[in-house]
Amino acid sequence: MNNPIKIAVDAMGGENSPKKIIKGIKIHYNNSNNIFYNIFGDKILIDPLIKNENLPEKNYKIFNTKNHIKDEDSPLSAAKKGKDTSMWLSIESLKNNESDAIVSAGNTGALFVIAKLNLKMIEKIDKPALSALWPNKNGMNIVLDLGANIECNEKNLVDFSLMGSALHKSLFEEEEAKVAILNIGSEEIKGNNTIKNTYQILNEKKNPLFEFKGYIEGNHIMNGDVNVIVTDGFTGNIALKTAEGTANFITSELKSAMNSSILGKLSAILNLKNLKKFKNKLDPRLYNGAILLGLDKPVIKSHGSTDEIGFANSLKVCEKIIKGNLIDKIKKNII
Amino acid sequence: MNNPIKIAVDAMGGENSPKKIIKGIKIHYNNSNNIFYNIFGDKILIDPLIKNENLPEKNYKIFNTKNHIKDEDSPLSAAKKGKDTSMWLSIESLKNNESDAIVSAGNTGALFVIAKLNLKMIEKIDKPALSALWPNKNGMNIVLDLGANIECNEKNLVDFSLMGSALHKSLFEEEEAKVAILNIGSEEIKGNNTIKNTYQILNEKKNPLFEFKGYIEGNHIMNGDVNVIVTDGFTGNIALKTAEGTANFITSELKSAMNSSILGKLSAILNLKNLKKFKNKLDPRLYNGAILLGLDKPVIKSHGSTDEIGFANSLKVCEKIIKGNLIDKIKKNII
Repeated sequence: MNNPIKIAVDAMGGENSPKKIIKGIKIHYNNSNNIFYNIFGDKILIDPLIKNENLPEKNYKIFNTKNHIKDEDSPLSAAKKGKDTSMWLSIESLKNNESDAIVSAGNTGALFVIAKLNLKMIEKIDKPALSALWPNKNGMNIVLDLGANIECNEKNLVDFSLMGSALHKSLFEEEEAKVAILNIGSEEIKGNNTIKNTYQILNEKKNPLFEFKGYIEGNHIMNGDVNVIVTDGFTGNIALKTAEGTANFITSELKSAMNSSILGKLSAILNLKNLKKFKNKLDPRLYNGAILLGLDKPVIKSHGSTDEIGFANSLKVCEKIIKGNLIDKIKKNII
Repeated sequence: MNNPIKIAVDAMGGENSPKKIIKGIKIHYNNSNNIFYNIFGDKILIDPLIKNENLPEKNYKIFNTKNHIKDEDSPLSAAKKGKDTSMWLSIESLKNNESDAIVSAGNTGALFVIAKLNLKMIEKIDKPALSALWPNKNGMNIVLDLGANIECNEKNLVDFSLMGSALHKSLFEEEEAKVAILNIGSEEIKGNNTIKNTYQILNEKKNPLFEFKGYIEGNHIMNGDVNVIVTDGFTGNIALKTAEGTANFITSELKSAMNSSILGKLSAILNLKNLKKFKNKLDPRLYNGAILLGLDKPVIKSHGSTDEIGFANSLKVCEKIIKGNLIDKIKKNII
């Protein structure tokens, strides 16, 4: 048997932690094999939860931590005074090669600052990028950057294309990575200089890891014609959150339309099965797990407000990234 | 009786024109009073359509034009060789004070270039902005810029706040205008320098036309806490189109979920009324009409693919803008 995959888990971040974290670990454990969890957090809280879930002792180790970073801490103050926290120590276990990847549902800014302080950048990558899964008609997009870098140059965007493709190939090995740059038009002349220069570089220097498909407009993100969408962190953050807000708006309008009369209620009951199918397809827990790319170890951020199912999915992302050799894929394909 | 409001209508732009244009005029005519339409286009096509709609002769004049700008024309080539087109001549009728506003469903880029060539900028406004209506939980947002300016400085964003508020007050006179800047976080320190400087200016210099509410993130655009959302043209275009794409994705997923079984079909029939309510609320024809702000006459762009109902709504936007004295509101409140 191979060595197990070792995942460092910050058990103290996000809502309802550590309960949802431990439950999430159990769900993930049931659906995978040969995983070892290095769990960082308050042992007094965690021990009974793990006993309750019957997680086999050979599959985990608890590292008792006295402190944890709160959502309201600023990234810098968290980094300064956070060395005894569950987040810091779980990242440190990557630095010390005790874990292969880390997941936290805690403070996003703090996670990234502490990760950058403790881990090395991959050689020739200038800036890390925050990436996430975004559904499209045929499967999943990887979109990056989602907020790590407000301003990006063409070198950064080219790096993001490579890293996003490596991530897509790690998660969905059967599929070809197809990269597009998010822009306000599809013609070559559209956009600012950074975007136009990126277009030129990607168009001229082919990369074996992906096919370059040019520009994509916001309304085509979910069409499924491409699956890696590259943009600066400001634009990406606005796009992702706008999509989220639009989805919430529509589903809440739909809900109130369905409930606004007895007829609506009746048919809502009749339609339960199909509505459930619809809801499942749009369930944000399926896409839970933002990935910080560019560091030489995988750092995964779970949504703070997700539940155990969402957290289990971000553990799955971790597992796939390690099995898919994400970091090697990036290193081997840097031009 | 007051002088009628005179609207210049480019009858040749967009899909199914001039048919949908003339039908749209009739719908608008039926729902308003004291409007005069200056209709620019091919008289041979337009005459029988107008006869068919029984539009009273005292309410319109047809200006026969031999040529029209096509969707595939580049803005610059359209501007160069377009002087005998329905679009150019309808804009020229604003310049000559023969019309109070213009609507076209034609080539967007050409419309803006020709409008800028023929009309003056409002004094002290440096750049025109493209604005549109975007639904929120409580009513309507005005969002700008949506693509006229890829890069904006703080002066531009301050101007957009003023112009967007003037537009909101013209369209929804009962409501207070509440401005927010689109950003990637709600704390004062977030965003790039242009955004932070704009925040400072708007926070310090109160404008009687609107209340400044700080930053807004993409996922809160539709919450209804503010109603004028200011951003540069690149970000605004991406946000609007991403929202559009997300809405299309969800409604098409919903449709296929509703039809995927006999039970689904049955309940879809039962639910027709509520689904219709829902659909109506999200009907893009309701929000049809992008407004180019900053010129000293109102220029309104209808979506090219809308139908007569959508076109009638953009005529309604025209009418409200003129009745609401949009241009005066902007001029009076420039700081």
